[in-house]
Amino acid sequence: MGFDDVALPDVTGLTVGILGGTGPQGRGLAYRLARAGHPVRIGSRSAERAAETAATVNALPGVTGEPVTGAGNAGACEADIVIVAVPWDGHAALLSELAPLLAGRVVVDCVNPLGFDKQGAHPLRVAEGSAAQQAELLLPASRVTAAFHHVSAVTLADAEIDSLDTDVLVLGDDREAAALVQALAGRITGMRGVYAGRLRNAGQVEALTANLIAVNRRYKAHVGIRVTDL
Amino acid sequence: MGFDDVALPDVTGLTVGILGGTGPQGRGLAYRLARAGHPVRIGSRSAERAAETAATVNALPGVTGEPVTGAGNAGACEADIVIVAVPWDGHAALLSELAPLLAGRVVVDCVNPLGFDKQGAHPLRVAEGSAAQQAELLLPASRVTAAFHHVSAVTLADAEIDSLDTDVLVLGDDREAAALVQALAGRITGMRGVYAGRLRNAGQVEALTANLIAVNRRYKAHVGIRVTDL
Repeated sequence: MGFDDVALPDVTGLTVGILGGTGPQGRGLAYRLARAGHPVRIGSRSAERAAETAATVNALPGVTGEPVTGAGNAGACEADIVIVAVPWDGHAALLSELAPLLAGRVVVDCVNPLGFDKQGAHPLRVAEGSAAQQAELLLPASRVTAAFHHVSAVTLADAEIDSLDTDVLVLGDDREAAALVQALAGRITGMRGVYAGRLRNAGQVEALTANLIAVNRRYKAHVGIRVTDL
Repeated sequence: MGFDDVALPDVTGLTVGILGGTGPQGRGLAYRLARAGHPVRIGSRSAERAAETAATVNALPGVTGEPVTGAGNAGACEADIVIVAVPWDGHAALLSELAPLLAGRVVVDCVNPLGFDKQGAHPLRVAEGSAAQQAELLLPASRVTAAFHHVSAVTLADAEIDSLDTDVLVLGDDREAAALVQALAGRITGMRGVYAGRLRNAGQVEALTANLIAVNRRYKAHVGIRVTDL
């Protein structure tokens, strides 16, 4: 009963909305998912910037047929799966605002609450335990999961890299929603979506990004994480 | 300036003490370090159990010349590097007691403060932030690092496995001490000791063990972690 034996759902062609789709991580995920054939709706406070990003991503190598469209944040919520890739600062406010539109949706939080000082990155204390748990509280009618925390935006954006040598840890209390997100991660060449626990265990996954930043600093790298013996 | 280019110190033959050396993780590390040629002192509250464990490990495949000896916890502190692999419950009390003996030593904390309930493992709140930071506070005269959190005791103990497919995240504010511990991890075949930040970033590394336990439960595996693109 290793990883390969787990039957994941077929997510081919599912529409993906990305809140914060004009930021580095959101844009990088948009690129990879578009390359994998998913229609992607870029959400942003500015419809103009969303349209610009959509046009840029559609022009990248490996993307065919203009699958990416710009949308307001509201438009990005009209998707089968909605990724939240906004800065931690605006996380609570945006989700509170969009809660009615996200009702019933599979939501993927990939926000890392981090602070930065002279000694580098460090996790911020989050009253709810984690960004993902905050999302769960603010979106009681949504199917909240967490994933894509550790994926390097630089690597995602690098069109020369065909296959990403990294796994994605997927968290969620709703097993069906988590399986969808695992399958979505698996649509990106090289990635596996590995189930890694309930949302109460999301805090350390978010915070681990501070360690990966430390690794990147020390070794001048853009590292990822693989789960071995799986 | 990738991982290979970092000059790590030569730790060949350094003596390693293991507090909690009769537990699964301590014993597993004792085995691998003995196999790599290090004299190992097994610490335990019971000198008898320490001696038993030492004899058992000395008899395992790949270990030559009886490098492992039983010792009281005090005896295990008389080593170049002292690994703390005790249960979280007794962590603070033991370190307070041994603080004078650990003065000046390189200490490697590998304790994961976890709780368990029906839904699996979850991190416990630690007032100091992490087991490693608690160790740092209790051992102001020691050179405290943290490492070996994610290494599966089952895999360590499996004599059939020659090479461990896992990296070890090493944390520490004392760069020289951290480099020694990185080098020590690198003495175990297959492992790399990757510098992963200061002790203030140890909490999430300890807590991530809860996620790896969730992965193991879901996939019936004994997983490890690799840092990719390094």
